[in-house]
Amino acid sequence: MRSLSGIQPSGTLHIGNYFGAIKQFIDFQSKYDGFYFIADYHALTSHPSPAQLTKNTYDVVLDYLAFGLDPEKSTLFLQSDVPEVTELTWILSNVTPIALLERAHSYKDKVAKGIAANHGLFTYPILMASDILIYNSDIVPVGKDQKQHVEMARDIAIKFNSIYGDIFKLPKELIKDTMAVVPGIDGQKMSKSYNNTIEMFAPKKSLKKQIMKIVTDSTPLEEPKNPDICNVFALYKLFATETQLEEMRRKYLGGNYGYGHAKKELLEIILEYFKPYRERREELVNNMDYVKKVLKDGAEKARSVATEKIIEVKKAVGLVGNIY
Amino acid sequence: MRSLSGIQPSGTLHIGNYFGAIKQFIDFQSKYDGFYFIADYHALTSHPSPAQLTKNTYDVVLDYLAFGLDPEKSTLFLQSDVPEVTELTWILSNVTPIALLERAHSYKDKVAKGIAANHGLFTYPILMASDILIYNSDIVPVGKDQKQHVEMARDIAIKFNSIYGDIFKLPKELIKDTMAVVPGIDGQKMSKSYNNTIEMFAPKKSLKKQIMKIVTDSTPLEEPKNPDICNVFALYKLFATETQLEEMRRKYLGGNYGYGHAKKELLEIILEYFKPYRERREELVNNMDYVKKVLKDGAEKARSVATEKIIEVKKAVGLVGNIY
Repeated sequence: MRSLSGIQPSGTLHIGNYFGAIKQFIDFQSKYDGFYFIADYHALTSHPSPAQLTKNTYDVVLDYLAFGLDPEKSTLFLQSDVPEVTELTWILSNVTPIALLERAHSYKDKVAKGIAANHGLFTYPILMASDILIYNSDIVPVGKDQKQHVEMARDIAIKFNSIYGDIFKLPKELIKDTMAVVPGIDGQKMSKSYNNTIEMFAPKKSLKKQIMKIVTDSTPLEEPKNPDICNVFALYKLFATETQLEEMRRKYLGGNYGYGHAKKELLEIILEYFKPYRERREELVNNMDYVKKVLKDGAEKARSVATEKIIEVKKAVGLVGNIY
Repeated sequence: MRSLSGIQPSGTLHIGNYFGAIKQFIDFQSKYDGFYFIADYHALTSHPSPAQLTKNTYDVVLDYLAFGLDPEKSTLFLQSDVPEVTELTWILSNVTPIALLERAHSYKDKVAKGIAANHGLFTYPILMASDILIYNSDIVPVGKDQKQHVEMARDIAIKFNSIYGDIFKLPKELIKDTMAVVPGIDGQKMSKSYNNTIEMFAPKKSLKKQIMKIVTDSTPLEEPKNPDICNVFALYKLFATETQLEEMRRKYLGGNYGYGHAKKELLEIILEYFKPYRERREELVNNMDYVKKVLKDGAEKARSVATEKIIEVKKAVGLVGNIY
């Protein structure tokens, strides 16, 4: 079973990403033939600066490798290293009704937010369909908000198959378990767009600063505190053992234990938890040749699947290529 | 100066195509570094059957080679043999406002005619812009109806250059001289969509049938006829020398010369005119290996230009490829 996952190169990761997606991603690789691509073509829809896109692309590769994505088990590559995907995008465009794209939530949401409607945003579901279909993906693990995109890929595949024969495997979405939503430092869902994140690979000083900014109530130091309504405690829960958690709960309820103390313990446990990953990441940063080699090998593997597929597709629609 | 021309693989050519476009196309090749591509990707927007698309693609290649397109002077290739064009299409999509596409005449016309709006039709101007920009084209010879597409390519290039630096050469349209409009057998402009064409490479029997169907008035055989309002005469004019034309004019005015006679002379002169091309075409049909070799060589030459450009573009937008 092949599983396909797109990873947005959208900048520094935070612990919301880790518990919400990465952990599960990494776990998948023992169960499926995992294709993981960095969606750098897709990132262009939001016009990053070129330097930022390059940095974000490498950052996310480093993060995933540090967290244990294993290039021996899985295929890790850049979306833009498989240009056959754009070729398929063009071909699928011709069996995709405009109306289907107009129904896309993500497009409607962005337009509603006043984001200038470039054509990339509009056509993106076809690119996503190509990504899914070109690798004969069986399943696509996605969040609920991305379910529609997999459905659209399936609709497009069905339409294409009905005209040109049985070319595409029909993919299924695998809705990722809703992990406990990770609260940000203000108690809302942790998200870069809320500017409330804790970045596990940030330099220790910045990490400390982020944690110290976690919003708490104004219960005085000496009074007992309710752990179940406290952001610090909620975050601590993600990392602590049962015993550690009971210990902290006891301290909250006992009084004479301030939020400052709790934050310090949270910082310690975060540093401890991510220590091996942080070290591994530093090793990788000092060995970029290896990282590039991983991407090159991944691209070759992905391309061999994509090329076979695009030949099949081109033949089916009557394009008489001379280059493959 | 590089000149770029897209050729629609839209089926059997007729003498309207010849005098309206092909002749001029062929003449261009001594003046410019001509890139000629068969727009087979584009053809998908109108959903040809796969077999028809394949046949039309080869037919149009055979026609152009027979008419003297010289692969030593010019670069002849299939659009779909340069997939980098679709890659650039995706990248340009992100700097193309939806509103620009909504203004395209060709899209509005097709929708107005009730043609189902697939996304290929909508996005096609970006594909065309890619075709133009990826080869650093200086000029694009087009009919008036295609002027807007070159303007859109220029707009997109300007927008891209303003964000990412001076990457694209700004192309200019070269509006083709309005050749004398070639009348069809019913007197309207000759056009496949009016079903009034004369196909110069049709088997002689069909060609004769087409010519015999030319609409004339009902002036009796013995009476003088007005050559200047006669479709047969108008067509004869395209092929005849001054002397031949004067001779026929004399016969029209003299009476005792029927339209049947004129049609016979028209058939003769058409057969005579296209004889060397017809023979050359038959040679080519019997030598498809050569034809495929021409396309392969053309694709290689076009791709070398396109690849250099796409590397430049990807670097400019911050895509860190590993495959080129």
